[in-house]
Amino acid sequence: MTAATADPVRAAMFAALAASERVRGSTSPNPPVGCVVLDADGAVAGTGATQPPGGPHAEVLALRAAGDRARGGTAVVTLEPCAHTGRTAPCTTALLAAGVARVVHAVADPNPKAAGGAEVLRAAGVRVESGLLGEQIARGPLRAWLHFARTGRPHVTWKYAASLDGRSAAADGTSKWISSATSRAEVHELRGKVDAILAGTGTVLADDPQLTAREADGGLRPHQPLRVVVGDREVPAGARVFDDSAATIRLPGGDPAAALAELGRRGVVDVLLEGGPTLAGAFVAAGCVDRVLAYLAPALLGAGPAALGDAGVASVSQAWWWDIEETTMSGPDVRVSAVPTGR
Amino acid sequence: MTAATADPVRAAMFAALAASERVRGSTSPNPPVGCVVLDADGAVAGTGATQPPGGPHAEVLALRAAGDRARGGTAVVTLEPCAHTGRTAPCTTALLAAGVARVVHAVADPNPKAAGGAEVLRAAGVRVESGLLGEQIARGPLRAWLHFARTGRPHVTWKYAASLDGRSAAADGTSKWISSATSRAEVHELRGKVDAILAGTGTVLADDPQLTAREADGGLRPHQPLRVVVGDREVPAGARVFDDSAATIRLPGGDPAAALAELGRRGVVDVLLEGGPTLAGAFVAAGCVDRVLAYLAPALLGAGPAALGDAGVASVSQAWWWDIEETTMSGPDVRVSAVPTGR
Ligand SMILES: NC(=O)c1ccc[n+]([C@@H]2O[C@H](COP(=O)([O-])OP(=O)(O)OC[C@H]3O[C@@H](n4cnc5c(N)ncnc54)[C@H](OP(=O)(O)O)[C@@H]3O)[C@@H](O)[C@H]2O)c1
Ligand SMILES: NC(=O)c1ccc[n+]([C@@H]2O[C@H](COP(=O)([O-])OP(=O)(O)OC[C@H]3O[C@@H](n4cnc5c(N)ncnc54)[C@H](OP(=O)(O)O)[C@@H]3O)[C@@H](O)[C@H]2O)c1
Repeated sequence: MTAATADPVRAAMFAALAASERVRGSTSPNPPVGCVVLDADGAVAGTGATQPPGGPHAEVLALRAAGDRARGGTAVVTLEPCAHTGRTAPCTTALLAAGVARVVHAVADPNPKAAGGAEVLRAAGVRVESGLLGEQIARGPLRAWLHFARTGRPHVTWKYAASLDGRSAAADGTSKWISSATSRAEVHELRGKVDAILAGTGTVLADDPQLTAREADGGLRPHQPLRVVVGDREVPAGARVFDDSAATIRLPGGDPAAALAELGRRGVVDVLLEGGPTLAGAFVAAGCVDRVLAYLAPALLGAGPAALGDAGVASVSQAWWWDIEETTMSGPDVRVSAVPTGR
Repeated sequence: MTAATADPVRAAMFAALAASERVRGSTSPNPPVGCVVLDADGAVAGTGATQPPGGPHAEVLALRAAGDRARGGTAVVTLEPCAHTGRTAPCTTALLAAGVARVVHAVADPNPKAAGGAEVLRAAGVRVESGLLGEQIARGPLRAWLHFARTGRPHVTWKYAASLDGRSAAADGTSKWISSATSRAEVHELRGKVDAILAGTGTVLADDPQLTAREADGGLRPHQPLRVVVGDREVPAGARVFDDSAATIRLPGGDPAAALAELGRRGVVDVLLEGGPTLAGAFVAAGCVDRVLAYLAPALLGAGPAALGDAGVASVSQAWWWDIEETTMSGPDVRVSAVPTGR
């Protein structure tokens, strides 16, 4: 038995985290939440995760699965239970009706409309604790939603693949395969967990990418993000980005913040910006990148297009600075995750 | 007590490794070796490390320090003791004269002239074991010397500093300080451990660097590498690279292999190639880089000179591939060490 599972509540939080990861991408504008209900003896009685908008929340599904075993038990949930009536009834009501004695949540709800869940539960005599695995979950499945709740703007991850010396292709434009099969599979998994993928007309016209989330065998993943082509140039109706494997919209070029506002209005919370260098440069320059995810292949090219285009930096004093959040290996590649300095 | 020190022989090998690190840069063309002599009870009796060419080897110094306590004891040494007479007598003779009962070395001597030390000792009844911390020491202090012994060519580390997107300076040429104080200090420490620093005339003319190994306070470190300016253009006699803080030579441009051969003839084993991008590209293209050491600052620039210039790669199929050996943080920077694939 590992340290992680020695404590049933901690083990339940890891299970709730895993359950929430499985629904990422399908819940927006609601948060992807996971819940595990333990019975009075600490045994797992039910698990649930947020269903698509209009469907039941994680707590309600977990309570349903637990049935009578929830009475006197503990609800372990990745986000503070909501206390307000939206398209569904408040989760606090369901938890009280089921008779749970204790609620442990990882992350407090920053949303003024929904907050107060902990208060409502405490007032009704339920023991409420907050913070277990809080940082891990806030940086993981709830990251984009928390960002949206705080700023009103979708969270943008700029993902790029480049050689160690920062080239996204060789001098003749060839780029297959700079990054490894492992990294490409990881990116497809990520695509399957976001709400939208953005690419500029330059990339669409040059590469005719499909911009879908695919399995290793090429088949489509269950969840497909919205495909968004940004820019004013015409794109042929026969382009692969317009095939019927997923929905696609076009947005005008210009102000990245305006494009994000439009996406927010459409319920998009989590955005994967896949480039190319011109669009990425515009987003960086506008302060519209919340996370950089770089896949650096262990190759040197010495020539070829750069991964990032003009980002409004003329001198080192104007550089955009980031904090490295994590550096890991992705197969043979170095994978770097960074967030803007000071956030 | 940690696992590393629970075993006195293992602890002694770590101490021998540390002793060898302290003399790195001052022993070429001899290897920087460390030796710890344990008495018959396993207590440390003496420590030594290779002195500059002509001076005593590590074993001799450690035996001298141990005196009579060496009798019946164990010599723990990072490299197989030599059995041949060069400028000094064979170390095997000294070990036998001192009466050690056991010799533990990390790395076998690949040098046909010196090899056979283990044989000579065994024939005289000494217990000899090989391999303890072998990989760590072969990749560490003995790396360059082993490379030289195997290939006849000095070992070249190409070190560069760049932004995460691969720029070594901003559009206006400013580059101070792309990499952090921690990384800069690390590079000065590394300079203090190599035999020579190489830079192209382009870098010398553009930046007027001193190319010395300095302490944090700006003072010179005890060991200064040979400064080597590569290229045909004239460099003003008043350039800082010609000041009296260290020796400097000039080598013609053209074939990197020829430059390395000339350095090898001068007893240089361990080379730090500090750029710039043109010279680095030529070395990469010639297969003359044995290790890449990249300091990637967590900054995005989106414009400015690339870290690596033309390396003869037109298409991705011609890319130079590396194996990532290690990725670590150096203060806020990502530090990547890579070796050519297949070596
Ligand atoms: N290594 C990687 O990770 C990666 C990823 C993607 C693409 N790429 C490569 O990138 C290349 C294409 O480069 P690219 O730079 O032309 O593509 P891009 O960044 O995808 O597209 C650039 C276009 O985006 C539009 N745009 C929209 N908003 C903009 C804004 N705020 N500022 C500027 N432009 C805006 C403009 O098109 P309009 O003129 O139509 O308005 C602009 O010409 C391809 O060869 C592709 O292979 C590499
Ligand atoms: N970020 C970093 O880590 C870093 C490190 C160093 C420099 N830099 C920057 O790099 C810039 C200078 O760039 P650079 O590319 O001009 O400098 P460079 O690579 O230092 O010098 C290039 C010169 O090296 C000579 N050379 C010698 N052997 C050669 C060969 N086999 N092939 C080609 N050239 C050879 C040539 O000079 P001749 O014509 O005289 O023969 C060539 O013009 C500076 O601004 C500096 O700040 C950055």
